[in-house]
Amino acid sequence: MGKGMLNNLIAKMPSGTEFLVWNRSKDVVNGIAGEHANVTVAATAKEVVEKCETTYCMLSTLEASVAVFDSLDGVIAGVSVGKTIVDCATLTPERIKDAAARIAAAGGLFLEAPVSGSKVPAEKGALIFLCGGDRAVFDAIRPALDMMGKASFLFGDVGQGSRLKLIVNMIMGTMLSAFGEGMALCEAADLPADKLLEVLNLGAMANPMFQLKGPNMIKDTHPTHFPLKHAQKDIRFAICMADELGVSLPTSAAANESFKRARVEHGDEDFSAVYSVLKKPKSKK
Amino acid sequence: MGKGMLNNLIAKMPSGTEFLVWNRSKDVVNGIAGEHANVTVAATAKEVVEKCETTYCMLSTLEASVAVFDSLDGVIAGVSVGKTIVDCATLTPERIKDAAARIAAAGGLFLEAPVSGSKVPAEKGALIFLCGGDRAVFDAIRPALDMMGKASFLFGDVGQGSRLKLIVNMIMGTMLSAFGEGMALCEAADLPADKLLEVLNLGAMANPMFQLKGPNMIKDTHPTHFPLKHAQKDIRFAICMADELGVSLPTSAAANESFKRARVEHGDEDFSAVYSVLKKPKSKK
Amino acid sequence: MGKGMLNNLIAKMPSGTEFLVWNRSKDVVNGIAGEHANVTVAATAKEVVEKCETTYCMLSTLEASVAVFDSLDGVIAGVSVGKTIVDCATLTPERIKDAAARIAAAGGLFLEAPVSGSKVPAEKGALIFLCGGDRAVFDAIRPALDMMGKASFLFGDVGQGSRLKLIVNMIMGTMLSAFGEGMALCEAADLPADKLLEVLNLGAMANPMFQLKGPNMIKDTHPTHFPLKHAQKDIRFAICMADELGVSLPTSAAANESFKRARVEHGDEDFSAVYSVLKKPKSKK
Amino acid sequence: MGKGMLNNLIAKMPSGTEFLVWNRSKDVVNGIAGEHANVTVAATAKEVVEKCETTYCMLSTLEASVAVFDSLDGVIAGVSVGKTIVDCATLTPERIKDAAARIAAAGGLFLEAPVSGSKVPAEKGALIFLCGGDRAVFDAIRPALDMMGKASFLFGDVGQGSRLKLIVNMIMGTMLSAFGEGMALCEAADLPADKLLEVLNLGAMANPMFQLKGPNMIKDTHPTHFPLKHAQKDIRFAICMADELGVSLPTSAAANESFKRARVEHGDEDFSAVYSVLKKPKSKK
Repeated sequence: MGKGMLNNLIAKMPSGTEFLVWNRSKDVVNGIAGEHANVTVAATAKEVVEKCETTYCMLSTLEASVAVFDSLDGVIAGVSVGKTIVDCATLTPERIKDAAARIAAAGGLFLEAPVSGSKVPAEKGALIFLCGGDRAVFDAIRPALDMMGKASFLFGDVGQGSRLKLIVNMIMGTMLSAFGEGMALCEAADLPADKLLEVLNLGAMANPMFQLKGPNMIKDTHPTHFPLKHAQKDIRFAICMADELGVSLPTSAAANESFKRARVEHGDEDFSAVYSVLKKPKSKK
Repeated sequence: MGKGMLNNLIAKMPSGTEFLVWNRSKDVVNGIAGEHANVTVAATAKEVVEKCETTYCMLSTLEASVAVFDSLDGVIAGVSVGKTIVDCATLTPERIKDAAARIAAAGGLFLEAPVSGSKVPAEKGALIFLCGGDRAVFDAIRPALDMMGKASFLFGDVGQGSRLKLIVNMIMGTMLSAFGEGMALCEAADLPADKLLEVLNLGAMANPMFQLKGPNMIKDTHPTHFPLKHAQKDIRFAICMADELGVSLPTSAAANESFKRARVEHGDEDFSAVYSVLKKPKSKK
Repeated sequence: MGKGMLNNLIAKMPSGTEFLVWNRSKDVVNGIAGEHANVTVAATAKEVVEKCETTYCMLSTLEASVAVFDSLDGVIAGVSVGKTIVDCATLTPERIKDAAARIAAAGGLFLEAPVSGSKVPAEKGALIFLCGGDRAVFDAIRPALDMMGKASFLFGDVGQGSRLKLIVNMIMGTMLSAFGEGMALCEAADLPADKLLEVLNLGAMANPMFQLKGPNMIKDTHPTHFPLKHAQKDIRFAICMADELGVSLPTSAAANESFKRARVEHGDEDFSAVYSVLKKPKSKK
Repeated sequence: MGKGMLNNLIAKMPSGTEFLVWNRSKDVVNGIAGEHANVTVAATAKEVVEKCETTYCMLSTLEASVAVFDSLDGVIAGVSVGKTIVDCATLTPERIKDAAARIAAAGGLFLEAPVSGSKVPAEKGALIFLCGGDRAVFDAIRPALDMMGKASFLFGDVGQGSRLKLIVNMIMGTMLSAFGEGMALCEAADLPADKLLEVLNLGAMANPMFQLKGPNMIKDTHPTHFPLKHAQKDIRFAICMADELGVSLPTSAAANESFKRARVEHGDEDFSAVYSVLKKPKSKK
């Protein structure tokens, strides 16, 4: 996703803007740098932060975040007074608050900006940014966010963006589980699952996700857009948040258990692979 | 809904078509008959069947179906060789098969045609018919269905239409329960629920139902389009069907328990009132 | 179970009591008749009812009940004024009320007497009878029930015995599902499941069922005492009852979905085989 | 619980044993010290550790553990080479491993020894110790554990005792939720809940917990033995553990959501108060 976001920034930033980029695997950044005179590859994440006003970070997991933010040559090591860090990862509110506090302690500014949308929206500049942080930082960064996305929201203090993101992903996972159960029942009842898709597409529930995932579920092949193990992690974090807040979520908790079951065998497939554990086994009576 | 469907038939049937109508409460049918020279009110449902080639039935519950189909002056009593009965109610597959068998025994033809869509789509002629029955009967009735709806499907024998309808409504209820849990978590986390709606509307989950029900859920007022008690009944019937077929539906079963809990106090409100039992009580810590 | 019950009646009824017995498979009743001079095998269930004051019926499923009660040479066909029928099957309240009504219409008396306990308690005369019906009939039959069981309860009208039985079996199934999940977690955490059994046996949760089923679950072999498909059916009927009464049962509904999943492959094994779908697959990471 | 445990040690340790005790609220320890010449009250937890060979800790929550272990005058501050710390609290495996590591770093020995059982078993010396740690430490401490309990188990490394404890409490909570749902259904069906208790007590599910909690549930009064908020926390931790291990727990997860719902209003009552949210509201149709 970082590649698509970067390409949009390169294309839309005022001419004369210089980009310093770093990535754990170098092929992508070397490729982009080879195509653009104003793009240079840094040696470390720390170097990016030290040399740039604003650093955008896009990391897929907590492990990646720890490795890239917390190491000696990492993001936080490069922060000094006036530097701005924009973190687009989906992490827990706890982790993001902790990073924000350390950046603030070093004199930096921080914007939490997890995104709704995956690879294709990233390429098209159609992401949705769910931000948390100071209004002034958000206002300053917003033009750049608008180059990469179609909408940006500020939800309050750092942590609130991640919380909203987790809620969105919890609804998404539970909705897909509901859909998968309906598809499973459809097949067991000798009803045509493709027609169910058509019916759903004509009514009040019509949504792009069902149309995108439905045909893959019918084939039970799940090319990865959003890995199931990440989807399950987000549902889990949302449920943990609800536990702290005293909110009961029986439907989402049930969906989480199905995703958890799917994770054992299908964790690296798309999260539509939850269908693989929901459908009735073919060979059984 | 019957009123909207009838108005579409009156408007779109070839001129010269005569309509004989009957309803348990007379105001609606008297009103329509007063406006159209070719619409007459019958004394009984039986009379409608006896005098017309084709009879369309739209009844909201099993109790209504039993009262209107099975009584001495009811639908089935009027059936003779060559009569066609089109039943648009959502009932159990068992009930609809039983009605079909009795109509067939009397020499009649039967089409099961439950609809997806509620009052507004009925008025606009935008219903979706989910049919079961003989292909020949379906083909003969289809032009009339097309006057009342935007799509018609034939899913196989009588019973299959109802089964698909139940699956659609199960997905719908579970999806709304997932959405309601997300909204509840949003409010408990001091996040703006209207912004969650906006975010959802911009992404892959965007669907008319969330946009329609979301604002009512935020206000926790639930003007009835589809009564919660009917929505819960459909989820329950779908789960019973799954039980017979050996399909496990943990997410939908969890949603059903929330709908059941909501039914006790909110059964006559819209099914979005499931939110009333999902949201965290305001006065509590 | 019928065999154990009959043997207790033969052993404990006053001498001179004559028994007329009938069973769908003849080996068992022929065997018992061969051993006792006062036991005769009837040609039909109807004959038993016609010739005896009181008829005890023990049938394992609804299908068996329909076959033996409703046929031309069945139980109900034999009922006349003053005959007493005691039905020990676990059926739905609806079915048992229907049977009671037909027996009453023929002038007979009826006691609903489903049992708690399986084969071994039946042999030992240690069943528990959960009755519904008139107090006078219960009082008249109680001495016989006491020969077959260690306790008898009258819960009200016909139907209430079956309802209580279903509740007992719902608790039992859900409790076993809870236990199975704990065992599964124990194994996945490299903790010794046999020690978990020991710990549970020493504390407030100690119960014969865990001690009986636990070792089988550890071995994942499930010799049938109470078939899983029957256990699941009872949970399902209890949940249906709760649906009618507006009681939400999220934990039991979740357990039911696991039993349903187990039913597909393990329906004829003991209901402890729910563990087979709860445990984490061995070969998976 | 600490009081009961201490009294058992005082009564059963060899004469001449000196006890140094500390508690956050002083009344209890002052009272005991006043009754026994060999019991002295320390000024701080640190002092206890510094002056004694072996220190037994019994703290009810993570917050209490942090306050008493991690403060400047706390347990860990007092550890030096050869000191043994026995921690009887139920915490997360992560917390207990962290404490163990810090104690080891200071040269101390550590035994994780969470208990199964509450106040009354503590007074009677009938606790069950679920230990993790080195076999040598366990063997050395076991005689003292046997003075306070009726059984002690060593489950492996530090952390495994807490994990088993969490599993036990998860089974306990889910089992009580199953029982509460059955009781709720019983009442809604106009069946006598006290008779359900009797029936359960006669059968394979008979267990002390149902007999202890059942009468309170019938009255819907829940004098606190084990606070609901602690019970829910343990179920939650067990579910988190299962999430890490990839074990799906649909029944327990459903129970957790009911406990979570109960926590909002009934968190300080006994965990049997889950019944308060399971039973059908009296005033509703």
